[in-house]
Amino acid sequence: MDLVKPILEDVKHRGDAALREYTRKFDAVVPDSFVVDLSRSNPKIDSSLEIALGKAAENIEAFHRIQIPEDKEILIHGNRLGIRHTPVESVSVYAPGGKALYPSTILMGVIPAKLAGVKNIQIVTPPQQGALPDGLVAAAKIAGADRIILAGGAQGIAAVSYGTESIPSSEFVIGPGNKFVTAAKVYLSGQGVIGIDSPAGPSEVLVIADDCANPVWVAADLLSQAEHGEDSVAILCTDSLSFAEKVRAEVEKALLERPKRGEMKRKSIEDHGRIFVFPNLEECFAFSDLFAPEHLEIQTKNYKEDLKKIKHAGSVFLGNYSPVAMGDYISGTNHILPTAGAARIYSSLGVSTFLKRVTWQEVSKESLADLYPHVKVLSEFEGLDEEHGTSVKIRT
Amino acid sequence: MDLVKPILEDVKHRGDAALREYTRKFDAVVPDSFVVDLSRSNPKIDSSLEIALGKAAENIEAFHRIQIPEDKEILIHGNRLGIRHTPVESVSVYAPGGKALYPSTILMGVIPAKLAGVKNIQIVTPPQQGALPDGLVAAAKIAGADRIILAGGAQGIAAVSYGTESIPSSEFVIGPGNKFVTAAKVYLSGQGVIGIDSPAGPSEVLVIADDCANPVWVAADLLSQAEHGEDSVAILCTDSLSFAEKVRAEVEKALLERPKRGEMKRKSIEDHGRIFVFPNLEECFAFSDLFAPEHLEIQTKNYKEDLKKIKHAGSVFLGNYSPVAMGDYISGTNHILPTAGAARIYSSLGVSTFLKRVTWQEVSKESLADLYPHVKVLSEFEGLDEEHGTSVKIRT
Repeated sequence: MDLVKPILEDVKHRGDAALREYTRKFDAVVPDSFVVDLSRSNPKIDSSLEIALGKAAENIEAFHRIQIPEDKEILIHGNRLGIRHTPVESVSVYAPGGKALYPSTILMGVIPAKLAGVKNIQIVTPPQQGALPDGLVAAAKIAGADRIILAGGAQGIAAVSYGTESIPSSEFVIGPGNKFVTAAKVYLSGQGVIGIDSPAGPSEVLVIADDCANPVWVAADLLSQAEHGEDSVAILCTDSLSFAEKVRAEVEKALLERPKRGEMKRKSIEDHGRIFVFPNLEECFAFSDLFAPEHLEIQTKNYKEDLKKIKHAGSVFLGNYSPVAMGDYISGTNHILPTAGAARIYSSLGVSTFLKRVTWQEVSKESLADLYPHVKVLSEFEGLDEEHGTSVKIRT
Repeated sequence: MDLVKPILEDVKHRGDAALREYTRKFDAVVPDSFVVDLSRSNPKIDSSLEIALGKAAENIEAFHRIQIPEDKEILIHGNRLGIRHTPVESVSVYAPGGKALYPSTILMGVIPAKLAGVKNIQIVTPPQQGALPDGLVAAAKIAGADRIILAGGAQGIAAVSYGTESIPSSEFVIGPGNKFVTAAKVYLSGQGVIGIDSPAGPSEVLVIADDCANPVWVAADLLSQAEHGEDSVAILCTDSLSFAEKVRAEVEKALLERPKRGEMKRKSIEDHGRIFVFPNLEECFAFSDLFAPEHLEIQTKNYKEDLKKIKHAGSVFLGNYSPVAMGDYISGTNHILPTAGAARIYSSLGVSTFLKRVTWQEVSKESLADLYPHVKVLSEFEGLDEEHGTSVKIRT
């Protein structure tokens, strides 16, 4: 955080000029313009990619549409009280560059914001050598973003939080990034400059499986997390020692048979991969709730019942045909999830991330008079009777 | 934040011993025990206070009960997807001491957590000279808290966040406090130690009123905010110059007629009190949405319609019989609200503050096979086909 603070301050005060300097320094490239207007972009992508992005967007929208909350109203003691839901005005979705260029994350960030009614949505992503990948631009257009901001790291977060001469500011900044991006988001959130999603750490899966599960499939699921990076965490909890041994053998076998990203996967598995054999499944569930994994797979005989035993997890994948990759890409659930135990206190990204509950009340003259004696007693106890008490009393 | 960091570290490592030292230093008193078990407390309070607290609790519970969300389930492309809501395990509600000893805030913090299903709820409040006020203990018992922790300031926040030998830790810490309390909450939240509500600043009211409003009543409402402290903010926006002048005269008159907390109220009004006369009410609403007040009163002819024009406010009070004090104490809405413009991005405290959305999915064998081609295309584009793609493919 000490490293990013001067960068944030500098971009706040010097705007585009400072952003240009940091972009040259950290990204070794300076775009002609920081802003790509999506209404004027015509990305060219394979029809198979266009269809896949469209299908993913359709399912994500369907699952997030059920999250739109209803406004509420109730009569209590003769007074009308209610709740309205209103969206934040502007959102930036950070999309990491380089190896982690994920059009799917753009869909996951933008679609819930659109459904919440956010009017002003932009992608912020580090500029790259050469043209912006068409797949990224296509995802942003399909999701319904307004523009792409070509800026990365702490300087990119500062630019979209404070705004610059050329870049509109956002009040909410979400999406995964490296430690400089995360530090910038946390700092600016603490200062009240922006709202943020829960800070993103390395990806995690915890698989709870019994003898009914397929060790080849479970091994592939563990390696899917390892594929994200060498700090990724893949854990299997099981009640069966023989199953544990089969999965260990299948992981070893797959590492030899599928060499792509091999070094990274092996390092992740060796440093952070674990298989725990517990005396029974109940202890697997208890361990999982303490760990509060980002992704939880339950591949047990009674997985439907077992879901009810789980309180703390980002997203849960049930049965033998629900690998995490289905949720990562296509089924409709969000893949921007709390990590590092944050699922004990935070939710996955959703429509309500971008909505506020505004409460309201219309007190009746009769109820005001009826309730005044209680207000008098309470405000006197708190030493606030002179004005709080009076403001009610004079209306009786 | 630099001032509180060493205190937080010290309490984290030395526990009760460090807490005792800071409590002696800052509160000039050390309680025999930091923990008051509420199941063994028998507070003695006037029946009028007991009835008032009971009525307030009843209305708060009724209003917050409608906020309990329903779990959801949907079939998308042949797959079952759903959302479960689960509570955080443990919550501490900070209640300031001294002049700002508010039993009402205990009700506001604890009741929504109870409705969310939180199992472990404690109050944390600075120790005082002499016995703990019975009104505070009674409010904690009525609300349903488990215990009171006698610790204040940054050291109190550290104690309930990390836990000590005698004090249970909480994963969520809420409630208003001074700048040391707020700095400690923000720092520990940024470190991922606890979840928090939105940081609390000085109290604010913005009143939008036309000629239909009563200048005497509006003056009392402005002074109610001023009564909280000299940094409180009270603003009137109106389309009528003559109404503005009447309110100004009534505020001056009331300051003379109601001398209690007079110096504080005068300083608040002089430093932070403003009356703005706009050409029309539409501009009052636009200004209010930019300001995003903690409390918004709309005392206009068409207040029901005017509510719909508001997007950003903590809690809205409609018509001539809804002074903020009704919501502060008795009507049922929550009075722990976002301040300093935070209502543009955050909600008031509510049941969902303590709930997480856990998403889940059960993918069918047929749908997995049907959707696999899209997963293949997307994972290839993102360079994650080796494992993400394979984890789906091997199940087809």
